[in-house]
Amino acid sequence: MGTARVIFDRWDGRYAERMSGVRSSAVRDLFAAAARPDVISLSGGMPDVRRVPHEAVQRALRDALKHDGAMALQYGGSDGRFALRTTIVGLMAESGARLTEDDLIVTAGAQQGLDLLAKVFLDPGDTIICEGPTYVGALQAFSAYQPRIECVPLDEHGMRMEELEETLKRLGPRGAKFIYTIPNFQNPAGVTLSPERRRRLLELARTYDIPVVEDDPYGRLRFDGGHILPLRALDAEVIYLGTFSKIFAPGLRLGWMAAPRPILAKVLLAKQAADLCGSAFGQCVAEHYMKGTGWRRVLADLTHTYGERRDAMLAALAEHFPGDVTWTHPEGGFFVWVTLPAHLDTKALLAEAVERGVTFVPGSDFYPDGRGCNCMRLAFCYESPEQIAEGVRRLAEVCEDKLELYRAFVAAGAVPAGARATG
Amino acid sequence: MGTARVIFDRWDGRYAERMSGVRSSAVRDLFAAAARPDVISLSGGMPDVRRVPHEAVQRALRDALKHDGAMALQYGGSDGRFALRTTIVGLMAESGARLTEDDLIVTAGAQQGLDLLAKVFLDPGDTIICEGPTYVGALQAFSAYQPRIECVPLDEHGMRMEELEETLKRLGPRGAKFIYTIPNFQNPAGVTLSPERRRRLLELARTYDIPVVEDDPYGRLRFDGGHILPLRALDAEVIYLGTFSKIFAPGLRLGWMAAPRPILAKVLLAKQAADLCGSAFGQCVAEHYMKGTGWRRVLADLTHTYGERRDAMLAALAEHFPGDVTWTHPEGGFFVWVTLPAHLDTKALLAEAVERGVTFVPGSDFYPDGRGCNCMRLAFCYESPEQIAEGVRRLAEVCEDKLELYRAFVAAGAVPAGARATG
Repeated sequence: MGTARVIFDRWDGRYAERMSGVRSSAVRDLFAAAARPDVISLSGGMPDVRRVPHEAVQRALRDALKHDGAMALQYGGSDGRFALRTTIVGLMAESGARLTEDDLIVTAGAQQGLDLLAKVFLDPGDTIICEGPTYVGALQAFSAYQPRIECVPLDEHGMRMEELEETLKRLGPRGAKFIYTIPNFQNPAGVTLSPERRRRLLELARTYDIPVVEDDPYGRLRFDGGHILPLRALDAEVIYLGTFSKIFAPGLRLGWMAAPRPILAKVLLAKQAADLCGSAFGQCVAEHYMKGTGWRRVLADLTHTYGERRDAMLAALAEHFPGDVTWTHPEGGFFVWVTLPAHLDTKALLAEAVERGVTFVPGSDFYPDGRGCNCMRLAFCYESPEQIAEGVRRLAEVCEDKLELYRAFVAAGAVPAGARATG
Repeated sequence: MGTARVIFDRWDGRYAERMSGVRSSAVRDLFAAAARPDVISLSGGMPDVRRVPHEAVQRALRDALKHDGAMALQYGGSDGRFALRTTIVGLMAESGARLTEDDLIVTAGAQQGLDLLAKVFLDPGDTIICEGPTYVGALQAFSAYQPRIECVPLDEHGMRMEELEETLKRLGPRGAKFIYTIPNFQNPAGVTLSPERRRRLLELARTYDIPVVEDDPYGRLRFDGGHILPLRALDAEVIYLGTFSKIFAPGLRLGWMAAPRPILAKVLLAKQAADLCGSAFGQCVAEHYMKGTGWRRVLADLTHTYGERRDAMLAALAEHFPGDVTWTHPEGGFFVWVTLPAHLDTKALLAEAVERGVTFVPGSDFYPDGRGCNCMRLAFCYESPEQIAEGVRRLAEVCEDKLELYRAFVAAGAVPAGARATG
């Protein structure tokens, strides 16, 4: 079912205005190409679920049917099963955030949390603040509610606080509906918000009375350095989005949202309207999978593996890419953000890359306004170290021609050396 | 997580305008009360999943993990797994509708289909046409997009075509974004749209160039009479919503939407924004559960059981309710619609009914505008014939006091006998 196949649409002009702002994601469209066995995927952020033991999943279902019986097959409460919320309370406590089962609801992945928050908060024309670049799925979810999106640039320590403060000053108190941030191993940039900036972000949010949305899919996937407290641990008013996609499996579509109760009550109404309730079946299986310590061993092993792959990617980048290309050095998560010289357009490189058997996501997908053209997101989560090295080599080949052309232009004074299209 | 517990909301005034139109469903709120073992539930439309054999579900998962491996745990395409869409194509063909895998997508229950259609089509103030009464979940889903809702009354043969035509004339060509109908064993009224009216509805929709949305959760649950072709079988432009909730289990949250491809492309974008993709895990299990003929035996047995329960409810209503109370006679599905004399308010009876150990859904929940106050929806899908008889008896007791008071008023000339608050 590709949108490209639609040529004539006799309903054109009758859709809601919001649909003009909703665009397809190159990430999603690439999943098809990445399925070709000869293509090395550095695009999709797919956890390596091949490591999840099938026996553990089957045991979880057996236990679920034994303990929960027909409840596992029935409609459930819109807020999610209490036992799974208890599991989540435990996970949050381990990360340093104290809350109860009534402070959170289960969602269909963290993505549904993004959609519901936008639905609950955004009227057309409302302003929200995001990182630039930011998660493409968040841009998709938010765009359907027609906001004005302000992007605050990142550096190696996460969102830049000077620029955030400038933006807030300009917008004034309550001038934005929320600030959206991915503090740990950001998608797509791979950078982590420092503890100092976390405190400063919360201070600024309080001063300007703007809710903070903390999206934390990768928080448990740290390879180097020590754990940093989530924003939700520092401030109980922070809206926190978590997911089982990276600690168990995305195929169950299970995530959660912790939020102040008045906000959660609104979100719950929006969730009822969206799908009545989450899957009791999936929740029961997750509940029982997360009992005992088996999942911790799987996750520790997987995190170690992701770390090796990150190493392979950084080594290959250093080996194959020239000095006028830079990239981030993530301490966890799935992604490295690569910046080519300005005026190079990574979108134009994609078709050739796919042809040579490697995929990535062009940087402009991660901005609402066409910035990021000279950047790309590389995912190291799914392929083996050998495949990653080979993928980066192929990618460097694809870039090399364009880079040489670029250098020739610079030498001729046609473009300023070192110019950046993005912060 | 009850909305009632929220007393002070410091974010009040900062939510989207749409949230003022989204109300909680009494149906959902009652699920909690109905869980008390002494309470007979005539409220929730919960399929009797106790009949689904656990071994069949476990076998389905085992087969899924064997055949699909890690794919069952991974992100999938937003349109749903091809193999499950093939299963759906087969189900639709059996009901008389011809389509291919590219003409439909898998959704999180039919409820998500309602939400996505509203998201794709409705700007605030747009008009839609529904039956009156109609499915409370549809009203919830639609209301979040701030439409004007026109209700066309029903009689024992479904939506009344004279009133539909009047409404369409008044609104003019393309005067509504869509017409929403539940032709089979309507929720909440239990009535079925006659073949003649189906043809007339499509004629009118074509004349006024308005898309038709056919919601068909109960089509396969017929006890009496012959199969009637769905609207989608008569017109390929009809948007059709189906669900596995009643033929397998609601706990997997799996449904589908068939629609013309340009519309489906828009819906797919909206689905990506809402949850990225459906649960591959649930889809794989459903795929394998629906192989072979086991599910057909379970469904046939279940349908027979629902038929016996319908009989028990109709008999109990005839035994316990006086002549000034009327009700519908469904040929399938889950629900009977009971109409008390006008000026009686079923909402006011609910607390007492719960106290006496029986639940129902007040009629006003099924209208956008407060009509239906003297009506109630009774579900016969979940309790045994004996419990249904006892539940109806308890309900009659609750009503009897009010009915006697009403009759005294009528005798005194205070209210006109036989007046109806709804059509």
